[in-house]
Amino acid sequence: MPVYSARVLVSLRPSVLDPAGEATRAAAARLGVGGVTKLRIGKAMELEIEAPDLDTARERLSLLSDRLLANPVIENWTLELEPHGTSTTAASVMGEG
Amino acid sequence: MPVYSARVLVSLRPSVLDPAGEATRAAAARLGVGGVTKLRIGKAMELEIEAPDLDTARERLSLLSDRLLANPVIENWTLELEPHGTSTTAASVMGEG
Repeated sequence: MPVYSARVLVSLRPSVLDPAGEATRAAAARLGVGGVTKLRIGKAMELEIEAPDLDTARERLSLLSDRLLANPVIENWTLELEPHGTSTTAASVMGEG
Repeated sequence: MPVYSARVLVSLRPSVLDPAGEATRAAAARLGVGGVTKLRIGKAMELEIEAPDLDTARERLSLLSDRLLANPVIENWTLELEPHGTSTTAASVMGEG
C-alpha cells in the first residue's frame, strides 16, 4: 500500500492569547534580536500513513487532526500531504549543525 | 521598514525518542485511524519581523532559532521566510471549522 508523508500544523486561533509566544518575543529582544513584531507558538506533527490512495489518506488525517491532534475550540489546523519521498516545501535555511 | 513573515519548524533529532508522539500514534489506532506508521511532534513558530532586507531577516531569525527557539542538542530547525503578505506554502486542507 502506498505511503504518504504529512505535516499537520496546529496553531492557536487568532483570538486566543499566547503568553508563551509573548514571553519568547520579549526574550528575543533581550537577546539583541529586535524587530520581532509577532511570535506565536504552535505544534508541527510529522506523520507517515499507509493508505490506498491520496484521498483516503487526506480523509483519515483530517479526522485525526479534528479529533486528536488539535483542540478545535482554541486551535486551527492545516494539513500538508504528499506521496512519501517527494518534498515540495521550500526550506531556505536549515539548522542541522 | 519591510516586514517579513517567517515560520520556524523545530523537530526532535531523529536519534531522540518521542514518547508523546508514540502515545499519539497509539491513540490514533484506538480512534480507528490505522496505517499511521510514524508520528513525531515538533513545534511551529509563526513570526513577523521588521528588517531592512531579506538577508538581514534571515540572519536574525537564524540566530534566534539557534539560541532561543530550538535546543540544538536534541532538535533541528528549519526556517521558511518570505515578504509579508505572500504565501507560497501549499495548504491542501485547513481545519478552521
